[in-house]
Amino acid sequence: MSFKERLLEVSRRNGSLLCIGLDSDIERLPQFLRQELGGRAVLEFNRRIIDTTHDLVCAYKLNLAFYEQLGPPGLEMMVETLDYIPKELITIADGKRGDIGSTSRAYAQALFEHYGFDATTVNPYLGLEALEPFFEYEDRGVFILCRTSNLGAREFQDLECEGKPLYRQVAEAAVQAHERSGNLGLVVGATWPEELREIRELTGEGMPLLIPGIGRQAGDLEKAVRYGTNSRGELAIINSSRGVIFASEGEDFAAAARAAAERLRDEIERCRRG
Amino acid sequence: MSFKERLLEVSRRNGSLLCIGLDSDIERLPQFLRQELGGRAVLEFNRRIIDTTHDLVCAYKLNLAFYEQLGPPGLEMMVETLDYIPKELITIADGKRGDIGSTSRAYAQALFEHYGFDATTVNPYLGLEALEPFFEYEDRGVFILCRTSNLGAREFQDLECEGKPLYRQVAEAAVQAHERSGNLGLVVGATWPEELREIRELTGEGMPLLIPGIGRQAGDLEKAVRYGTNSRGELAIINSSRGVIFASEGEDFAAAARAAAERLRDEIERCRRG
Repeated sequence: MSFKERLLEVSRRNGSLLCIGLDSDIERLPQFLRQELGGRAVLEFNRRIIDTTHDLVCAYKLNLAFYEQLGPPGLEMMVETLDYIPKELITIADGKRGDIGSTSRAYAQALFEHYGFDATTVNPYLGLEALEPFFEYEDRGVFILCRTSNLGAREFQDLECEGKPLYRQVAEAAVQAHERSGNLGLVVGATWPEELREIRELTGEGMPLLIPGIGRQAGDLEKAVRYGTNSRGELAIINSSRGVIFASEGEDFAAAARAAAERLRDEIERCRRG
Repeated sequence: MSFKERLLEVSRRNGSLLCIGLDSDIERLPQFLRQELGGRAVLEFNRRIIDTTHDLVCAYKLNLAFYEQLGPPGLEMMVETLDYIPKELITIADGKRGDIGSTSRAYAQALFEHYGFDATTVNPYLGLEALEPFFEYEDRGVFILCRTSNLGAREFQDLECEGKPLYRQVAEAAVQAHERSGNLGLVVGATWPEELREIRELTGEGMPLLIPGIGRQAGDLEKAVRYGTNSRGELAIINSSRGVIFASEGEDFAAAARAAAERLRDEIERCRRG
């Protein structure tokens, strides 16, 4: 089954476009958990979040930085977290990798084969040719950074490049590459609704968009859903990380994460139907 | 001591601008070593390369992909490799990371604090604001991708953006940021000598350039040295990876690596003086 088909299936089954970002920064975890478990707190934190939220999401996104910052034990916890996520859900490696071809091959192997992620984010600066080794994994999704959610995204992504902004140059190149490989998507921040609308128009129906930046980054959820989905209200993955997983710092953190995720999932469903 | 001062000191002491890239892809290691040691071959390979070359270089660059592809044990070997490199030499994490600020902080902590690298490569697509957490480590070097060595670099980096190519927009922004933080450098492939000359003119005397792409990628070594160094013939780091470490596939691989490194070091010295 292609990545896109899997995404459609799980989104329909769970009635959800919500992705929870397991940006489980050890420094921000509930203190009681850190005191009890030390460095292993990240794994226990993730497990409890997954326990209470897995029926509300289509995907989990793991930001590699927060595992890498703990060194090899952090990556062991990433492996155990991936094992713990129900198999039907999509797992996304948010690593934003991008290197020359021979190195991209090693990254793709690491993420898709060693860790077994279903999808990953990649950076287009080196040109799409450099990302070919990722595109070759037909059953995995490759989300190219297009318009990122941060304020500083403007600096280069908005530069007018031969008649159109850089992010649009990237989007157009990605659409072309997608016609060949069929497994591409784009990352577009919910913080930029007008650009999101433009990019969905450009990609047409069949390309999934990964949309971070709701919640703590204050992107507009309604527009993210309305502009980000295709005409059937599908193929958008709406990500919230800190707004869900750090909804409470107390012993009730997992229940609070569920409540925050449920609110978001319902709000997304309301916007899809509205 | 600032990163730049350290780089100058070790380059002068060893009479070398050469950096060896420990792109120690397990699939390309000498077969006898893999048969003998299995997954641990990477560490033994690195140790023997370091044994025979450490007096010929100013730096070692570790391409993170080739450690990550082995999972947590690969990162353990990266740690042990770093421990094995003589302390006076510069260690560069070639990870090309780039993410929004809160995530960049975690990557910077991972690379500079957890692993203790002296420098790293970063990707500018998200804007330099997103890289601020790296710039805050005043004693570490941050090399921003500017003009990468691969052929596909042209696709976006050459786009004419508001009067100048994107790579030049990146270089100019980096020069400005360097005036504040003092620890920036740029990555410019030896495969693009004209762009290298332009970028050295733009950065002036004080900014180090990391120059990959000689050797297997067939960049022009003489121009890399002449255009890449400042007026004193310094502050360029000329990297060769596969051309040195895979100079022989036999039991003599470490001696062959030394011979290849010595030729390169001497050729670089000849060009600096020429």
